[in-house]
Amino acid sequence: MSHAPSRALDRRHAAVREQLASTSLDALVVTSLANITYLTNFSGSAAAVVLTPDVVYFLTDSRYTTSVAQAQAEAFACPRLELVTVEGSYDATLAHFLATRAMPRVGFEAAHLTVNRFNWLQRTLASVTADVELVATEGIVEGRRVVKDDYEIDVLKEAGRRLSRAASRVLDTVRRGMTERDVAFAIEQHLHEVGFARPAFETIVASGPNAALPHARPTERKLAEGDLVVLDFGGVYDSYCVDLTRTVCIGQPSPRVREVYNAVLAAHDDAVAAVAPGQSRFAIDGAARDCLAQAGMDDAFGHGTGHGLGIDVHEDPRIVRRRPDVDVRHEFVAPGMVFTIEPGAYFPDWGGVRIEDDVLVTDTGVELLTHVTTELLEIH
Amino acid sequence: MSHAPSRALDRRHAAVREQLASTSLDALVVTSLANITYLTNFSGSAAAVVLTPDVVYFLTDSRYTTSVAQAQAEAFACPRLELVTVEGSYDATLAHFLATRAMPRVGFEAAHLTVNRFNWLQRTLASVTADVELVATEGIVEGRRVVKDDYEIDVLKEAGRRLSRAASRVLDTVRRGMTERDVAFAIEQHLHEVGFARPAFETIVASGPNAALPHARPTERKLAEGDLVVLDFGGVYDSYCVDLTRTVCIGQPSPRVREVYNAVLAAHDDAVAAVAPGQSRFAIDGAARDCLAQAGMDDAFGHGTGHGLGIDVHEDPRIVRRRPDVDVRHEFVAPGMVFTIEPGAYFPDWGGVRIEDDVLVTDTGVELLTHVTTELLEIH
Repeated sequence: MSHAPSRALDRRHAAVREQLASTSLDALVVTSLANITYLTNFSGSAAAVVLTPDVVYFLTDSRYTTSVAQAQAEAFACPRLELVTVEGSYDATLAHFLATRAMPRVGFEAAHLTVNRFNWLQRTLASVTADVELVATEGIVEGRRVVKDDYEIDVLKEAGRRLSRAASRVLDTVRRGMTERDVAFAIEQHLHEVGFARPAFETIVASGPNAALPHARPTERKLAEGDLVVLDFGGVYDSYCVDLTRTVCIGQPSPRVREVYNAVLAAHDDAVAAVAPGQSRFAIDGAARDCLAQAGMDDAFGHGTGHGLGIDVHEDPRIVRRRPDVDVRHEFVAPGMVFTIEPGAYFPDWGGVRIEDDVLVTDTGVELLTHVTTELLEIH
Repeated sequence: MSHAPSRALDRRHAAVREQLASTSLDALVVTSLANITYLTNFSGSAAAVVLTPDVVYFLTDSRYTTSVAQAQAEAFACPRLELVTVEGSYDATLAHFLATRAMPRVGFEAAHLTVNRFNWLQRTLASVTADVELVATEGIVEGRRVVKDDYEIDVLKEAGRRLSRAASRVLDTVRRGMTERDVAFAIEQHLHEVGFARPAFETIVASGPNAALPHARPTERKLAEGDLVVLDFGGVYDSYCVDLTRTVCIGQPSPRVREVYNAVLAAHDDAVAAVAPGQSRFAIDGAARDCLAQAGMDDAFGHGTGHGLGIDVHEDPRIVRRRPDVDVRHEFVAPGMVFTIEPGAYFPDWGGVRIEDDVLVTDTGVELLTHVTTELLEIH
């Protein structure tokens, strides 16, 4: 369950309905669970929504019908929701629903419906009626989600405070000799204690040579003298994701460790400083990349500088390099956008460093949502 | 990382290649991450595979290239793998790859490619070559995954033993006065301690009236005298999922609690007893449902009796009611299939009971993979 107040949901619906009207659609079939959470506060594992100019038809099965009905009595009830119970197949229920309404042009989310489901729906509808056209749409709800509303900003700020608290405790917990898996589990314990519902993604604890693998899984390797250890973790708070990375050194850092750390930290600071309303997201990525290039480490930074945060842990805007094959939507960041800044440098067989914070674009510049020391900590 | 030996991967590839040959396909583009794990042992968050009669082309980005290259030196290396590094967009890399090979008919996984990605791929390919046709396929890899091979059965048995050990500890841990969230976290601690990489799904601890919600999320509610508490949890072990549910009573069970519990337990036992090679999965579901109907509780059991377990926590075969809108593939269960048996009964505002074990279909009948008492426990 998310807990956006009914009036916030109302505004979200109004925005989607405007898009429907401007593209002459009679309804939008929403199959993305994150978009469904955004529009209704529901956060279970199975549902579909048909949003029309007047009603939010909510399709779900018996595992969820009682909780949806109960939530409708709360302050965060979804306005004008009508429950449609699914028995058996979601798509059969959806096809039957669409076939029996007078809605000639129905949009669907082309990024959230598989070719299989689409073909089946279209074939099934065509077999019973010639009066429903399924129209591919893209990004109608996501286009709204990319700029957070007041409720979402409050939740993300609170989540950032809690994640910072957890991170401080994590930095106090890590010890030489612990295994990566033990550290990962200790992190998840701290996330639980500060109130996160669950980790936002699989916690990364990558030590020594493993730190060269940006998406390493925790192993039984014990943290040893001289290791760099990348700690990357996040939590889900009231359906919203936050994400943070710090890199620590076991024992005294070598000059090379200091050099790499300082280059990544400078890239992090420069990218944060580059964030401002109207700034190109490619330029924010460039700020981090230029800084690492000056240290001769541009080849060591293969991934993007950041990603949007919200109901999904990876969403728009993507703070990445401009390339011919990269989508240019949402090029310029705007007040209310929330994303990570997480440059890194990775050297196979040696190790790596990543430093990550979450930022909010404000009317005048940027606000950090996470606050933990970025000094290179020596762990004993 | 999964750790299937290279020769097991070889056999899996051969099975897929037979399917390609029989449908005159020159390659299969695999976009399902679970199918990619099955074919290559890779278990990261982003990759695509193009399987041809000779080669397993493996597309991934810089976050994973080093670990994929390293894994190729191990006993569980993927045979005949060639790494293709993705810089920027996966789909652009894939389109370029397909456009530059002499492969006229390329299958794609219609259940694992969105309409958007398919349309983009098709348009992009058509703009550079008229020589590649994308052909929708369904269930080529899944059709093989539904029957586990020896390696998978060993992993699932070991996972079942570990889950049983965790479950025994969980039943010793639950106490009156703990919150649902605290119990859920204690469960995850036990899962970690017995060696699971992570929970297989969001742990369910549903107490009192919440137990009437089959997919409840843990809340701050404290377990209180008279509560039924549904505990549903699972773990991922070497990429494979197992899943178990027990329902306990806080304090002394009322006669009605005993009645509901005994009905669900009888349904569980009857469904397990119905499992045998060649048996219809609808009949297994029917065994549970008939039993609850005899107790007058058929309306209280809304969900299916079980689901397949493997790399996905919900996969084929689905042990559900036969309905006109339900897929009839894999109707008859076969040796090597692994699935849950988890009947339940739920009464809004009162509570509910679910009892779940994991079973393997053997040559002669059925083997339970999970072993924990199914007696109704009184917790103090």
